[in-house]
Amino acid sequence: MKYYAKPLNRLINELSKLPGIGGKTAQRLAFHILSMDDRSALELADAISDAKKSMRYCSVCGNLTDTDPCAICADDTRDKSVICVVESPRDVVAMEKIREYHGYYHVLHGAISPMDGIGPDDINLKSLIVRLQDEAVKELIIATNPNIEGEATAMYIARLIKPSGIKVTRIAHGIPVGGDLEYADEVTLLKAMEGRREL
Amino acid sequence: MKYYAKPLNRLINELSKLPGIGGKTAQRLAFHILSMDDRSALELADAISDAKKSMRYCSVCGNLTDTDPCAICADDTRDKSVICVVESPRDVVAMEKIREYHGYYHVLHGAISPMDGIGPDDINLKSLIVRLQDEAVKELIIATNPNIEGEATAMYIARLIKPSGIKVTRIAHGIPVGGDLEYADEVTLLKAMEGRREL
Repeated sequence: MKYYAKPLNRLINELSKLPGIGGKTAQRLAFHILSMDDRSALELADAISDAKKSMRYCSVCGNLTDTDPCAICADDTRDKSVICVVESPRDVVAMEKIREYHGYYHVLHGAISPMDGIGPDDINLKSLIVRLQDEAVKELIIATNPNIEGEATAMYIARLIKPSGIKVTRIAHGIPVGGDLEYADEVTLLKAMEGRREL
Repeated sequence: MKYYAKPLNRLINELSKLPGIGGKTAQRLAFHILSMDDRSALELADAISDAKKSMRYCSVCGNLTDTDPCAICADDTRDKSVICVVESPRDVVAMEKIREYHGYYHVLHGAISPMDGIGPDDINLKSLIVRLQDEAVKELIIATNPNIEGEATAMYIARLIKPSGIKVTRIAHGIPVGGDLEYADEVTLLKAMEGRREL
């Protein structure tokens, strides 16, 4: 678009590559960035390159971290008997926010999806097997997403690990707290019924 | 939040300062940026700092530009007899997109708003007066926003300029094309009636 000067055009272009940022929003953000004081704008640019440069994956669990091993893996006070398997580093954050889980994590960076050509070797699974050789681990909680890929991954891991005698559990599916029975889909409701517990 | 490593936390923080970007979106964008390849992420950071460093305001019209004077002011083929007064550089882009206006612009960088303590001296008005001393200018089109501040600014400029003999016009208010009479507010409908033209 020739309406913008080159550097502005480039900025709008780069911003619109971000998820959920369309052309109009990118334009609004770009004009906002140009109206910010110099320090704040360069702070933003620096935060991006700094995060990109200093963040890497933990060699133990695969979580995003600026230290290796990550703060969670390095924390000796956590419960060594449990490892929670999640698909992405975002899921670790979600789990940590409940403040009730004190074990360790293992981030798969994806899920098994034959449709997309993603097999067991394409996710961070091998290092999990290595970690499970530590006798301290008694339970593996599989917290992959409740969709086809997540379920397939959960089943695969369960079959792989169970023979070793480690307890493999799956997080519960059901009606979300604050949710409405009426609006729950059939599969969720079925899972909620299957997972019912005695009061 | 201690859930994130420091560089990630900083990035989320900086992103959430942008307009329309809340905490959740900032988190999503940050994780996306970290998952991008190195080149693309640094490209984004560089686009921000480059735009911030190389974009400035045109000394003639006040538009955002990377050259001085800006590409529009430097374009000798445009119609020297008209100057269109707008509030922000974004408005210049909007005007250019109609592809029918071929005069020059003047960007006020705001509008007169006594409520916010913004007087005529706080917007880019003085340089407009200087520009109008050029005898080539025959018409001043005031395209400030159709709100209280924009109207007040339009009235102020009209009173200031009219004695000099230059024609001062205001863009039309009315029903937007594709709009619905039924849903138009009373003021817009009144303006549409007042601005009616013979067919």
